[in-house]
Amino acid sequence: MKSLIDAALKREKCDLVIRGAKVFNVFTGETEEGEIAVKDGVIVGIGSGYEGAEVYEADGAYALPSFIDAHIHVESSMLSPEEFALLSVSRGTGVVVADPHEIVNVCGIAGAEYMKEAFARIVHVGVNPLEVCMQLPSCVPASPFETSGAVIDGRETEQELARELFYGLGEFMNYPAVLSADGDALQKLAAAKAQNKIVDGHAPALAGDGLNAYAAAGIKTDHECVNADDCNEKLKKGLYVQLRNGSSAHNIEENAKAMNEYNYRRFILCSDDRNAYDLKHNGQIDDALRRIVRSGVPASRAIAAATLNTAECYGLKGKGALAPSYDADIVLVEDLIDFRVSAVFKRGIPVAENGRALFSCGRYETNAVKSTVRIEPVSEDDFRIDLSGKTRVMRVKPNGILTEEEIYDCESENGDVKLPAGVCKLAVIERHFASGNMEKCLLSGYGLRGGALGVSIAHDSHNLVIVGDDNRAMARVAKLLEKAGGGMAIAEGTFEKAFPLDIAGLMSSLPHEEVIKETEEITARARRMGVKEGIEPFMSLVFLSLAVIPKLRLTDRGLVDVEKFEIVPLQIGEEA
Amino acid sequence: MKSLIDAALKREKCDLVIRGAKVFNVFTGETEEGEIAVKDGVIVGIGSGYEGAEVYEADGAYALPSFIDAHIHVESSMLSPEEFALLSVSRGTGVVVADPHEIVNVCGIAGAEYMKEAFARIVHVGVNPLEVCMQLPSCVPASPFETSGAVIDGRETEQELARELFYGLGEFMNYPAVLSADGDALQKLAAAKAQNKIVDGHAPALAGDGLNAYAAAGIKTDHECVNADDCNEKLKKGLYVQLRNGSSAHNIEENAKAMNEYNYRRFILCSDDRNAYDLKHNGQIDDALRRIVRSGVPASRAIAAATLNTAECYGLKGKGALAPSYDADIVLVEDLIDFRVSAVFKRGIPVAENGRALFSCGRYETNAVKSTVRIEPVSEDDFRIDLSGKTRVMRVKPNGILTEEEIYDCESENGDVKLPAGVCKLAVIERHFASGNMEKCLLSGYGLRGGALGVSIAHDSHNLVIVGDDNRAMARVAKLLEKAGGGMAIAEGTFEKAFPLDIAGLMSSLPHEEVIKETEEITARARRMGVKEGIEPFMSLVFLSLAVIPKLRLTDRGLVDVEKFEIVPLQIGEEA
Repeated sequence: MKSLIDAALKREKCDLVIRGAKVFNVFTGETEEGEIAVKDGVIVGIGSGYEGAEVYEADGAYALPSFIDAHIHVESSMLSPEEFALLSVSRGTGVVVADPHEIVNVCGIAGAEYMKEAFARIVHVGVNPLEVCMQLPSCVPASPFETSGAVIDGRETEQELARELFYGLGEFMNYPAVLSADGDALQKLAAAKAQNKIVDGHAPALAGDGLNAYAAAGIKTDHECVNADDCNEKLKKGLYVQLRNGSSAHNIEENAKAMNEYNYRRFILCSDDRNAYDLKHNGQIDDALRRIVRSGVPASRAIAAATLNTAECYGLKGKGALAPSYDADIVLVEDLIDFRVSAVFKRGIPVAENGRALFSCGRYETNAVKSTVRIEPVSEDDFRIDLSGKTRVMRVKPNGILTEEEIYDCESENGDVKLPAGVCKLAVIERHFASGNMEKCLLSGYGLRGGALGVSIAHDSHNLVIVGDDNRAMARVAKLLEKAGGGMAIAEGTFEKAFPLDIAGLMSSLPHEEVIKETEEITARARRMGVKEGIEPFMSLVFLSLAVIPKLRLTDRGLVDVEKFEIVPLQIGEEA
Repeated sequence: MKSLIDAALKREKCDLVIRGAKVFNVFTGETEEGEIAVKDGVIVGIGSGYEGAEVYEADGAYALPSFIDAHIHVESSMLSPEEFALLSVSRGTGVVVADPHEIVNVCGIAGAEYMKEAFARIVHVGVNPLEVCMQLPSCVPASPFETSGAVIDGRETEQELARELFYGLGEFMNYPAVLSADGDALQKLAAAKAQNKIVDGHAPALAGDGLNAYAAAGIKTDHECVNADDCNEKLKKGLYVQLRNGSSAHNIEENAKAMNEYNYRRFILCSDDRNAYDLKHNGQIDDALRRIVRSGVPASRAIAAATLNTAECYGLKGKGALAPSYDADIVLVEDLIDFRVSAVFKRGIPVAENGRALFSCGRYETNAVKSTVRIEPVSEDDFRIDLSGKTRVMRVKPNGILTEEEIYDCESENGDVKLPAGVCKLAVIERHFASGNMEKCLLSGYGLRGGALGVSIAHDSHNLVIVGDDNRAMARVAKLLEKAGGGMAIAEGTFEKAFPLDIAGLMSSLPHEEVIKETEEITARARRMGVKEGIEPFMSLVFLSLAVIPKLRLTDRGLVDVEKFEIVPLQIGEEA
């Protein structure tokens, strides 16, 4: 502390002086031209006349506090933590609140330990370029309708949450359990309260008394708002609104309309799910800033939502502002419209410049999280569906993840349904314990013809999801996925291809350039099989098991009607 | 937690429903008409259709979160904690961040323990009407120039701060020690940082590099701003600005001019020093609200500064808002202009109505903090001052606490100075250890004739301060104060009177009505002795030892030139 005071008073040389910056002050909303003086990784003053062991010329760039991503599932990038960090840091991110919900649903706590350790081992000139607050996933499994790779109950939550490993409790997506005052859910929430740890929320379409109950349970954030009214309802109940800039969520501008001069402090920015392509080419929180500022939010409010607000929400001391005693986590951007990041500092150490990380990283040991796909042998006959009469069909819609229920009149031939035009089959195979659990249904609106494709990512239990109109191709895809240890796979005629996701069947160990290229190639190949415009061939599949979003979803246990919150038979009239 | 959820969803009856209120939402700045539903002391919803075991008709009053006083020295009310609580709660205060700086400078940690325990024992229908976050005083003594009743060094601070007794570290008024990187001061600051406890500040006129250094040391608040520019400078450096509505600080309206739509979140309200009369007749944070709203601050921002902002600054979970999961600490006010408090609830229990507390309280045992005035016997000869030639004279000014230095040509007769017209004597006598320490000087601008008066409150070491133009009367006042165990005393001709402050020589055990009456009577009597208009006879004396405010101060060790930060001789030319 002495050296901070001495440096502030210019009795001692600073470690770094950033000269010629327009320094944005998130407390006042104003910009001041001057120098940023850094000692021991901490800002000791904004002013002039500092001497520094290192001097960085900002050339008139704007200096902002490093961005904080309030909520992200890193696994959705399909990148290793190390590759994620390279991209994230180059876009000005200093801290992420990461919820390893996906990998923990596959690997249990070992998945979170792997993520935390892989991030922690990235060190550059003595600093960790990307700090990670790891949330303990609250919903493992996410719903009672599927088989995940692990189960973390209330008692285990109590114990795990007490570990330094975890910062808080991850998004409580099982909101029906909260509303029904389910004992296990309440034990988790009570543990977080007793341990004074924040609980993230996930409350799509919840309002009124239901939202009151959800908030009364101590849940503090939500990232599922769909419009300004929804945001206002969440705000009123005391939840921080996380404005989400995900790869498949496209309503950040709409939600940002709810921000005003009074309530702006209660908005924070997050990615939730963001793929490698977007991280590389469009950015992360910098992209969210760009979007909301272009949509009319004053830059000063937008920046607060990317920095100070998030630090306050999560109690991140020393983060979110450029002022004495705050960590020297600094982003230089060319202007406050495009937010193009020209340099990034972590605790005073340069960690990225002009969109490229200045550090490199190996790979942390993945033994604990690889070879996770274990299935019973499958044959093409396993993909037969014997149906006749009125049948529930899941319809996917372009540009979104909601599904609808359609009723088709079906008939079978040789014990297998004759697929109506434009309809294919969807299968989900349990892949954690080789239990042989497998369920199938019909899918419309997708558009695939003459083959099959599949993926080992399937929110939230990450079983195998395979779609196709050819039983043999579907079985081949299952085998390809098993052999690859998870990933994305295609079978069409004699062609077959798999892109392995060797880390938990969710992420690749490859460099991000290769992950992007491989993903693009296999996706382009899939699209040529007839998948409709507006539907991502693989990435739309990953939500088809997510039994918390209306209307129909398929899991390894059956077809779920999310609104009824129960498993329903494929054929109408079979209800108990 | 189950009962909160069940009550929110109307599956279970609430404990209390407040009907017909205009409920102010501090997250949105908007007001909503409806019911406030309370279960287990916690708000479970704002809405309609709730059933309650108790129903309170608000009759259209505005409902606000209970006010939080961000910084107060309760001792300055001269009331016992119990009497303070009666007044404070009736004015809508739910939490005070109390810095027992005065009593700890007299009694050491035992003083803080007494205060905490006395507050904690006030219980009404199972709730404590006034919650107290007790800060560990950081400056005991406040300066090296005086003798206090206790010394709390860096090492003791480390140990004490770790106790549950203390919430954070009280205002760091010895800012010169911070700027000079004094080892003991840094040990205290480092302890607070290591223990993740907030440090309050006190940085009058500090700006630029000096303020950078002060902020870099981790200090988070300031209540010494004198105008909007000063506020902006503190804000920029990341300090919360505490808008002070003290009994002798009259610049809250001026400071509030710095509040705007962007920065309002960084302003919080406090009292610092507030006497019983003001608490009783003008109020506390309600009065601060009234003042700043009348001066033009929008009510929505003012209310945030009285509630949510303070809760955020101090990390007070569950405080500062009316929303599900927040404590049912609720104030009803008639409008958002006068903020006249009509009812107060603490965790859902009514604790005050129409300006009167609904609880009563006895007195917690004061043995640990009474009989604290111990002096060597004094005689009238001890008040002689032998002076000749150019002499420094302390000049007091009306309506403020700054003093000036005047130079007088003095001469003595029989070893005692002949007082120039309009000049009297000022004496400070050490009163904790009967050490015999006693210093004197001349005082102009005060106006007393024909007697003496004195007080045992003297910031920050609370030695005896006696002023007079008659040595015999001054000695009598010293004896009166000793006999009373501290207080306020007058001697004029054959008349003498003392109002005892039996708790540490700072506070009275009497009911607040009597404290107010006795104080008024003795003050009126003192004024008749010629004390000038604009100068409070007793309360102006209590700052004359405060060796952190320019220009001259007198302590039991000598005359201090605060700007030079050293003890200076009375006679010019005696400098070393």
